[in-house]
Amino acid sequence: MNKFIRVDMTMLKVSVEDVPEKYRGLGGRGLTSNFVNDEVKPTCHPLGRNNKLIFAPGLLSGTSAPNSGRLSVGGKSPLTGTIKECNTGGVVSQQMAKMGIKALVIEGMPSDDRFYIIKVDMNGVTIDEAPEEILGGCGNYKAIEILSKKYGGKVGIGLAGPAGEYRLPSANISFKDPDGNIRSAGRGGLGAVLGSKKVKAVVFDDTGAEKVPLADPEKFRAASKIFAKALMDHPVAGQGLAAYGTDVLVNILNEAGGLPSYNFTRGRIDHADNICGETLNETITERGGEGKVSHGCHQGCIIRCSQWYADKKGKYITSGFEYETIWGLGADAGIKDLDVIAYIDREMDDIGVDSIETAVAVATAMDGGLLPWGDGEAVLNAVKEIRTPTPLGRILGSGCAVVGKACGLYRVPVVKDQAIPAYDPRSVKGIGLTYATTPMGADHTAGYCISGNILKVGADLDPLKKDGQIEYARAMQVGTAAIDSSGLCLFVYFGVADNPGGYQAMIDMLNAQYGLSLTAADLDKLGESVLKAELDFNRRAGFSNAHDRLPEFMEYEALPPHNAVWDFDPEEIDQVLSF
Amino acid sequence: MNKFIRVDMTMLKVSVEDVPEKYRGLGGRGLTSNFVNDEVKPTCHPLGRNNKLIFAPGLLSGTSAPNSGRLSVGGKSPLTGTIKECNTGGVVSQQMAKMGIKALVIEGMPSDDRFYIIKVDMNGVTIDEAPEEILGGCGNYKAIEILSKKYGGKVGIGLAGPAGEYRLPSANISFKDPDGNIRSAGRGGLGAVLGSKKVKAVVFDDTGAEKVPLADPEKFRAASKIFAKALMDHPVAGQGLAAYGTDVLVNILNEAGGLPSYNFTRGRIDHADNICGETLNETITERGGEGKVSHGCHQGCIIRCSQWYADKKGKYITSGFEYETIWGLGADAGIKDLDVIAYIDREMDDIGVDSIETAVAVATAMDGGLLPWGDGEAVLNAVKEIRTPTPLGRILGSGCAVVGKACGLYRVPVVKDQAIPAYDPRSVKGIGLTYATTPMGADHTAGYCISGNILKVGADLDPLKKDGQIEYARAMQVGTAAIDSSGLCLFVYFGVADNPGGYQAMIDMLNAQYGLSLTAADLDKLGESVLKAELDFNRRAGFSNAHDRLPEFMEYEALPPHNAVWDFDPEEIDQVLSF
Repeated sequence: MNKFIRVDMTMLKVSVEDVPEKYRGLGGRGLTSNFVNDEVKPTCHPLGRNNKLIFAPGLLSGTSAPNSGRLSVGGKSPLTGTIKECNTGGVVSQQMAKMGIKALVIEGMPSDDRFYIIKVDMNGVTIDEAPEEILGGCGNYKAIEILSKKYGGKVGIGLAGPAGEYRLPSANISFKDPDGNIRSAGRGGLGAVLGSKKVKAVVFDDTGAEKVPLADPEKFRAASKIFAKALMDHPVAGQGLAAYGTDVLVNILNEAGGLPSYNFTRGRIDHADNICGETLNETITERGGEGKVSHGCHQGCIIRCSQWYADKKGKYITSGFEYETIWGLGADAGIKDLDVIAYIDREMDDIGVDSIETAVAVATAMDGGLLPWGDGEAVLNAVKEIRTPTPLGRILGSGCAVVGKACGLYRVPVVKDQAIPAYDPRSVKGIGLTYATTPMGADHTAGYCISGNILKVGADLDPLKKDGQIEYARAMQVGTAAIDSSGLCLFVYFGVADNPGGYQAMIDMLNAQYGLSLTAADLDKLGESVLKAELDFNRRAGFSNAHDRLPEFMEYEALPPHNAVWDFDPEEIDQVLSF
Repeated sequence: MNKFIRVDMTMLKVSVEDVPEKYRGLGGRGLTSNFVNDEVKPTCHPLGRNNKLIFAPGLLSGTSAPNSGRLSVGGKSPLTGTIKECNTGGVVSQQMAKMGIKALVIEGMPSDDRFYIIKVDMNGVTIDEAPEEILGGCGNYKAIEILSKKYGGKVGIGLAGPAGEYRLPSANISFKDPDGNIRSAGRGGLGAVLGSKKVKAVVFDDTGAEKVPLADPEKFRAASKIFAKALMDHPVAGQGLAAYGTDVLVNILNEAGGLPSYNFTRGRIDHADNICGETLNETITERGGEGKVSHGCHQGCIIRCSQWYADKKGKYITSGFEYETIWGLGADAGIKDLDVIAYIDREMDDIGVDSIETAVAVATAMDGGLLPWGDGEAVLNAVKEIRTPTPLGRILGSGCAVVGKACGLYRVPVVKDQAIPAYDPRSVKGIGLTYATTPMGADHTAGYCISGNILKVGADLDPLKKDGQIEYARAMQVGTAAIDSSGLCLFVYFGVADNPGGYQAMIDMLNAQYGLSLTAADLDKLGESVLKAELDFNRRAGFSNAHDRLPEFMEYEALPPHNAVWDFDPEEIDQVLSF
């Protein structure tokens, strides 16, 4: 990979550079975060001309390594004001890697209101005006269909939905998945940054691209095989996720008393049966769903956690129907009907808003009296208002922190203005340390301590106790920053956490591809260096330890059934990432 | 003054303590800011149980010192997250001082939804349930009338309007003025804190209170006389403000090219005649207005800047009709009709929202396409929606920063999430340094550098140049923190800035009251110590130098007619308050 593409949206000019020396060994999050820390002014306005957006495939993307097709997108977040990396499935990561593109950077902004499409193929980069029909409220499903017709069915697409066009802080960047449906670079509002730069879509056509070169193809194949087996042999990565999707977690967290419900006032619900992974699986199996059940978000995925959810007649409603979304609407907002939740999920995908942020915003709005508790139809209608957007749509599309302000609440489940996802930190202590300290704002994927606290994969900690959690949260964040740089899906962690051979195989794939001799310690060093770059950006943007705090109400509102409170001292929290 | 009253709204209990030793020499802002820094957890949620609200009269309040009736209110701000002191006219400051009450602190919060009234008289403090008829949308004018009937016409009242009950971030605390109308502790949302504690109103009855004791009455009278003459002899304090009100500034700032217009995209308007102080004065004089023209916001005011604005039939619409409000609606939002602006001002007072924050929020909403430019009727209707509040009302009532988020704008004129008022820092550089560095968030009253930049009172600096501005902004903030501790109205500054005898008389009044021998240097020390306490709170709340920045757009969007940009370096800005 030797191309570093910059698109200047102020001048509508493209430049293709060699990859700068300092970025040559980096990929995915390692590249996006270092780039943002190097080139984006930390105090800039996220929607102003000085923010930059960078797309980068992971180090293993484009190869045959299982589950290596994740794309990292980086910039300064309009939701949190911090540095941000989101990663997503879809086909773009592998296309970029095959095309030899290390990164695509979008900078500047046009002075007028026209929207554009950036088209990247083996002949270069063009900037086209966006067709009227995909603007101003046109949903992502339809826009993908139109763009696929215009540019060819096999193109990869990343686009700003209506929410991104309106630059709402919850806007995600939506990506066409291998089935033509939608995956999202979800959190932190990078879709609003794309919209601010007046880029409706980025389209990749890798026709004519060659295979990603491998330094030692033999060794790569061997390592890849061991790695695949490690994933398939693990009960979570190999079986649980394909059968039940991530929604398998509803019953597990409910049982653990860590399923935040009714705006984080309880840790367990009575209606878990309505929304759990087992019910999801039964429903999907029964309805057929155009012959699909689980599928992968990118080519080469062997975990296949994404669920294909159809209506009673078997017609597709949504996919990538995740636990966190179902939890947010089903438990936190109390909606008991999985079909309605699926329609809301589809609507969020179609509008292009983060389904975690929006679901939590909805539940918080219920607590603030803005929506009736548990009323799925009311929520579906309210979420539809984000498309236009109406004032209510603007509030919801601005995320949970704004809902909290507009409703005058103190019970606002956010860290650094990003909504806390589906695991209550009072009864699953480890994940609370990740929420508090990750440079991303509350984000379970930044250091998934559920693994050792609840699933008992990779560690065995008591979720209600503080013992060992600080070191564990640090290790998980370091490891995650490394995996996010590789292009591998985070779920590979389940397969390799307790399988040293599998872990080594993951490293061996990198070594075989690049002709290196990395060790596990090197991977940790990489992860740590990525976190350091992110923390440096945040500090210069004005963030200090005082921002690494969970919402205060968690310190004094005890969560049933364990009646647990958040009891880590500031000094303890500050140890997590004190490298 | 020897009473320090604490009202615990969790237990609905009152305790009356002696004034703690460390607070004995303090009053007004000096007391509120030290108290908040000492007792409020800096990372607490402003609307949660751990925030506290403190009311404190100034050091000279209750005496016959001219213009000494300002009350300070302190707490952690729901709008900015910083420490906050607002001060206001009305009758409460002098009543508290006469009753020997150094401070009233409201802490905790009830667990249910009932609202209460705190009644303070010479027999003690009672907590009554608030009558239904003044809750849930009842305006401040009517609530004051009802409370005055219930508790007696002469009582002092500070209350949360509908916006405060709903805990909106722009909610002010409204105070009954000597005419039964409304003054506001306006900025930073302390009305939402009052509402969060379920206190609808605080009522003071000073019947039976004695005069404030004076150590040397003779000396006090003599100093007071010199001080009064200094005020009356000055063209601004003695004549300009009474004749034209603060709105005299429209033409002055327009002429200077520093009148931010159409959401801070221009510095001059063509329709200044429609909204300027001269027109205001003509209109008021012509209409009569129940015999009143200018009046004072508190007893003992000899400046009398408050304008009594009546409709065409001479019927009262509003008073305390300030330049900043008229500017916000008339220039920044482009409304050309002074009558409509007056009705909007009345509506904001009646609902209890900060008229600066709300006017700037309105102009920003126009820039974001949420309201039509310059349409006064549309704005009046939109502001009315804050009363209920509807989703649009919630957006506007949450202040300019939230409007910016909900509209996806980068041109959002706020510092620390508080709206920048009526003087553009690109063409009046000094005031920009105050906006950037004051611990309050953008606030002209924290160091009114307009004085030496534009009015040429107290200094003579070129508003378009950086020379001398750093030292000047520091001196103005230090001096202001001292004046805000005295209970004196900030406008006394005009009278004493260039009059050493007048300045000495101000100090002599303090010396004569308390038997001290303070010098000008001591006053500076006091001001500096107040700022240090505020900065300490903010630092522990998570604020760093990176937050002491003006909105980035001012660095690259040049303001006509001077085409000036904001060009202070971060290093220069950080010198302002680097004590």
